Amino acid sequence: MYPTLLIDCPDQPGIVQAVTRFLYEAGVNIVRLDQHASEPVGGHYFMRLEFATANQSKTEAHMAEFQTKVAQHYAMRWQLYWPEPKPKVAVLCSKTSHTLLEILHLNSQGKLGGVVTKVISNHETLRELVESYNLPFHHVPIDKTSESKQASEAQILKLTEGDDLLVMARYMQILTDEFVSHWPLKIINIHHSFLPAFVGADPYRQAFDKGVKLIGATAHYATAELDQGPIIEQDVARFSHRESLSELRNLGQDVERAVLARAVRWHLERRIIVHHNKTIVFR
Amino acid sequence: MYPTLLIDCPDQPGIVQAVTRFLYEAGVNIVRLDQHASEPVGGHYFMRLEFATANQSKTEAHMAEFQTKVAQHYAMRWQLYWPEPKPKVAVLCSKTSHTLLEILHLNSQGKLGGVVTKVISNHETLRELVESYNLPFHHVPIDKTSESKQASEAQILKLTEGDDLLVMARYMQILTDEFVSHWPLKIINIHHSFLPAFVGADPYRQAFDKGVKLIGATAHYATAELDQGPIIEQDVARFSHRESLSELRNLGQDVERAVLARAVRWHLERRIIVHHNKTIVFR
Amino acid sequence: MYPTLLIDCPDQPGIVQAVTRFLYEAGVNIVRLDQHASEPVGGHYFMRLEFATANQSKTEAHMAEFQTKVAQHYAMRWQLYWPEPKPKVAVLCSKTSHTLLEILHLNSQGKLGGVVTKVISNHETLRELVESYNLPFHHVPIDKTSESKQASEAQILKLTEGDDLLVMARYMQILTDEFVSHWPLKIINIHHSFLPAFVGADPYRQAFDKGVKLIGATAHYATAELDQGPIIEQDVARFSHRESLSELRNLGQDVERAVLARAVRWHLERRIIVHHNKTIVFR
Amino acid sequence: MYPTLLIDCPDQPGIVQAVTRFLYEAGVNIVRLDQHASEPVGGHYFMRLEFATANQSKTEAHMAEFQTKVAQHYAMRWQLYWPEPKPKVAVLCSKTSHTLLEILHLNSQGKLGGVVTKVISNHETLRELVESYNLPFHHVPIDKTSESKQASEAQILKLTEGDDLLVMARYMQILTDEFVSHWPLKIINIHHSFLPAFVGADPYRQAFDKGVKLIGATAHYATAELDQGPIIEQDVARFSHRESLSELRNLGQDVERAVLARAVRWHLERRIIVHHNKTIVFR
Repeated sequence: MYPTLLIDCPDQPGIVQAVTRFLYEAGVNIVRLDQHASEPVGGHYFMRLEFATANQSKTEAHMAEFQTKVAQHYAMRWQLYWPEPKPKVAVLCSKTSHTLLEILHLNSQGKLGGVVTKVISNHETLRELVESYNLPFHHVPIDKTSESKQASEAQILKLTEGDDLLVMARYMQILTDEFVSHWPLKIINIHHSFLPAFVGADPYRQAFDKGVKLIGATAHYATAELDQGPIIEQDVARFSHRESLSELRNLGQDVERAVLARAVRWHLERRIIVHHNKTIVFR
Repeated sequence: MYPTLLIDCPDQPGIVQAVTRFLYEAGVNIVRLDQHASEPVGGHYFMRLEFATANQSKTEAHMAEFQTKVAQHYAMRWQLYWPEPKPKVAVLCSKTSHTLLEILHLNSQGKLGGVVTKVISNHETLRELVESYNLPFHHVPIDKTSESKQASEAQILKLTEGDDLLVMARYMQILTDEFVSHWPLKIINIHHSFLPAFVGADPYRQAFDKGVKLIGATAHYATAELDQGPIIEQDVARFSHRESLSELRNLGQDVERAVLARAVRWHLERRIIVHHNKTIVFR
Repeated sequence: MYPTLLIDCPDQPGIVQAVTRFLYEAGVNIVRLDQHASEPVGGHYFMRLEFATANQSKTEAHMAEFQTKVAQHYAMRWQLYWPEPKPKVAVLCSKTSHTLLEILHLNSQGKLGGVVTKVISNHETLRELVESYNLPFHHVPIDKTSESKQASEAQILKLTEGDDLLVMARYMQILTDEFVSHWPLKIINIHHSFLPAFVGADPYRQAFDKGVKLIGATAHYATAELDQGPIIEQDVARFSHRESLSELRNLGQDVERAVLARAVRWHLERRIIVHHNKTIVFR
Repeated sequence: MYPTLLIDCPDQPGIVQAVTRFLYEAGVNIVRLDQHASEPVGGHYFMRLEFATANQSKTEAHMAEFQTKVAQHYAMRWQLYWPEPKPKVAVLCSKTSHTLLEILHLNSQGKLGGVVTKVISNHETLRELVESYNLPFHHVPIDKTSESKQASEAQILKLTEGDDLLVMARYMQILTDEFVSHWPLKIINIHHSFLPAFVGADPYRQAFDKGVKLIGATAHYATAELDQGPIIEQDVARFSHRESLSELRNLGQDVERAVLARAVRWHLERRIIVHHNKTIVFR
C-alpha cells in the first residue's frame, strides 16, 4: 500500500500537469495515476494517485502548499490518505452470517484494506462466530418503539467513536436520517437483488415468483433516502427453474458476500470518489 | 429437429411412467426427456419430450388415444409439435436495426428454429436492410390518434394472418390489450435494462445517471400488463464510469440482441412452458 | 435430501418407462428425474432420480428385484444412495488455506453435502485453523525420498479408512498411481489455471508472463495420468494489465475455492456420473 | 474520436509531468489520459492520451519539438494517430462466415473504428455475402504446393498495399514468417478455444471429447511463432453435457466473433501497446 491522493474538481485544461508537476518538484514519485473526466470537455474531473515518498512529514508540509498553490486555483476537493494507521471498520449485523463471515475472513487474512475493530448486532445469534475470530461482539438490542431505536443508535454511535467505516453486513434495521448524517459516505450497505427492482420485504421470494433468470446484489453507500445511495458494485448469478427458492437464496447470498467484500475493500483502498450521487471506482 | 411434446399438469405419482410407457407401446422412441416439478411434492409438473417415429400419421392417431387414456386422467395440458412446417415469424420494428439484424442473420443461417416471413415497421427507415435479405417489408405508419393506432393494428393483424409468432425487435409502439389478446404467449418483446427497475422513457439514461455497474436486457412474452409478461431470458454486461452514455447504449444493444435471439430461438424450438406467469425453459 | 439413484447403460428404447414403471409399482414417488443420452440414437444413457419412500427396507428389497428385473436386461450400472449416513470427507492440504477454508466453512454451515472427518497435511502450517473448527488435524510429513512418500501414503490410507471422498485442497504432492488406484473417482483435485494450458510449476506466473486476459481453475477427479482425470467444473475470472502478479494470484485463488467447492458439493450430492473419462453433471 | 498519443518507455520519476506540461504549453487539451507501470518502481511505463486541438498542423510541428525536448530524454517510443483518415482494414477469410459477418456488420454501422477496404479469400464461398455489403471480394486460391503459397501471399501483399491492418477472420491458412514480418503487430488472428490448450486440428472436438465445462476464444497478433503472438482478448462461454458437439461449435463461434470484434476495434481505436510480447489494452 502506498499513500493515496484523491482529487476532484470542475474540469479545465492543465489540471494533470499542475498536479503532477507539483508532486514531481516535491520529490514525490507517482506509482500509479488514474483519472477520469465525466465529459470530454466541460465536465467534472477525478484523479487518484498512489505515490512513494521518502519523508512523510516533509510531504505533509508540501501538501499544505499544494492547497494554496494548486488546489485553490482549480477549486479542488482533495484528500490524502497514508497507509498507516489502517482504517478502522465496525461491522453491523443481525442474524445471518454469510456477509459477516466474508468480511471477518478477509480481515483475518489481512486482505480487507483495513482492520475490523468490533461487530455490533441487534441479536445474540452471531456472538460465538465473532468471538472465535477474537473480536469484540456488542449486543445492542432494539424493539419496535422509536425510543428503543433512538437508544440503540445512540449506543452504536458511542461504540463506533474512532471508527472510519460502518459496514452493514445484512443489518436488518433501517437507520434514521440523523444517524446516517453522522456517517456521510461512510456506511456501506448490501442489498439483495437488483435495486430498485425489488424493494421491500423478502426480495428473493419476489424475484422467485416473478421467474427471474438472474439474481443480483448491490452494494451502495447508505444515505438518507433508503437504498438510493451511490452504487459501489453490483453483480449477478444465473438462475433457472431447476433451482428452488432456497437455492436461489444461497445463490443470492454468494453474490451478496462477494459484492459487499469488493465494495468494502475498494472503499478502504481509497479507490472511490463520489460525485452527484454516482461513484467513480478506480479499479 | 425431432417432434416435440410439451406437457404440464398438477403433480402426482406415476406421471412419467404413464407417459413414457404409452409412448413406448406406441412405437415412439424418446430421444430427449426433460421434466420439472415446481415442488418436491404437490406442485405442478412439466415435461418436454423429443422423440423419433417412423410413421407420423400413425403417431397422430396414437396421440388421440393419449388424450383419452393418459392426459384426461392426469388433467394434462399438452401440445405436440412436428418439425415441419417450420413456425412462421413476423418481425415488428421501428428505426433501430440491432435486434432486427440479429434475427435476420440467424434466419438466413437457418439457426432461428423458424422462418421469418415478413418485417413490419411504423417507419420506412429499415426497408433497404430488410429487402437486402430478400424479405417483404411492410410500412404500417401510425400517428398519435387512437384511430390511427386502431387502423395500424388492424392492418398488422391482417398482414400476420398465418404467422405463428410476433417478434417485437424494438418496435416502439405500445400494443393495445385487444391486439395482444389475439396473440396469447405468441408475442416476444425485448426490454432494455432490467425489469422492473427502469420502467419508462430512455432507461439507458436513467441507468447511466444512477451510476449502475451492470446493464441488462430482458426478453418476455407481451401480455396486457405492459412489460410484466413472463420473463424468458435476461442477461447483463458490466459497465464502468470509463464508458460514456453512448458506449452504454452500444453495450446495452449488444445484450438486447443476444437476449432476444435466445428467447425467440427457445420459443421456436418449443423449449418453453408458461405456468402462473413464469416460464419453464428446458435448455 | 432424498434418496438418489444413478443409472447408466447403453441407450435403447424403453429404458425410462422400464425404470419409472418399476419404481411406481414399488410405491416409490419420483421427486426429480434427470436424464441424458450422449447421442440421439445409439449412444450411452444416463439417469439420475431423487425419490421419496415411506419404507427404506422395503425399497431396498425392491432394488434387489430391480437388479434382476430391469438392470440386467439393459446392462445397467446403477447405484442407490441414501441420505444418511452422510458421506465422510477427508481433506488433504499443504500450506495455503484458501480452498481448505472454503470447504471447512461450507462444512460448518451444513452446506457441503457430507461431513468433513479430518484434515491431513504434509506441513504443520494450518493446524490452528483446522482445530479452530474442532476437527482433527494430522501431520503426515514427507521428504523427497521415495521411501518417505511410500510411508506417507501408507499412513494416509490408514487415516482415511472409512472415508468416502478425498479432497485435495491444494495438497502439493503428486500421489502415486498405486495410491490413486485405491480411490477410483473418489479423489477430487483443484488445479489453478486452465488445463492443459499451463501445466507445471507456478502456473500463475506462466499465465501472467503470457499476458492472459482470463484466469481459471479446473476441478477434476484424480487419476493415474496426472491432471488428466475427468473434469468436474471450471470457471474463470477476468484479468487485466492493471493487476499485479499478486492480484492475479488472489483472483485465481478466489476462482479455485469456488470451483473446488462446487465440484465437491456436486459429488457429495450424487450429481455426477463418469463415462469414458467425461463427467455428466446433473445440476 | 480524438487524436491519440501512445507512449512507452523505461519508467522513471517525472514522465507524466513532462508529457502533460509539454502538451499544456502546446495548447493541447487532454481529454483522456490512461497510464500504466509494469512495476511500482523500475519497470516499464505506458501512456495513452486523447486530446483536442484547434490546429492540427501546429500540433504536428509541436510534436517534432516533443521528440527532441521530451521523448529523447526518456527514451520514449511514441506514435501520434489522427482520427482521419480512418485506418484501412483488409479481411482474410476462408469458408466460414461468422467472424467475417460480425466485422462487416460493425463496419457498415460505422462502429469498427476503421473502414474495411476489401475481403480476400482462398475460396469463392463467401463472395455473395461480401458483395451484398458493397465491398470488393478477391479470390486468391492456394493449393498445397509451396509455390502456390508463395504466389498467393505475393498476391495478397499486392492487394493489401495501402491497408493498415489485416484481420484473419477464420482464414484457414498458415502464413509464412516472411509474410508475417511485413505486417509487424498488424495482423489480428482469432483462435478457437483457449491457447495454448488445444493446439492443432479440430479443437472443438478435442474440447468436446475432453468434457470441458467452458469453451473459449483468443484473439492475438500474429507473429512468426504460430498462435503464440501477444494476446489481445479472450472470453469463454459455459458448456454442459446437455449440448452436442454442433451446439458447442455454435457457442464457440459466438465467442469467437465477439472476441475478434473487440480485439479489432481496440486496435483501430489505438488502445493497445505491445511490450515484451504482452499487450496493454487501455479500455
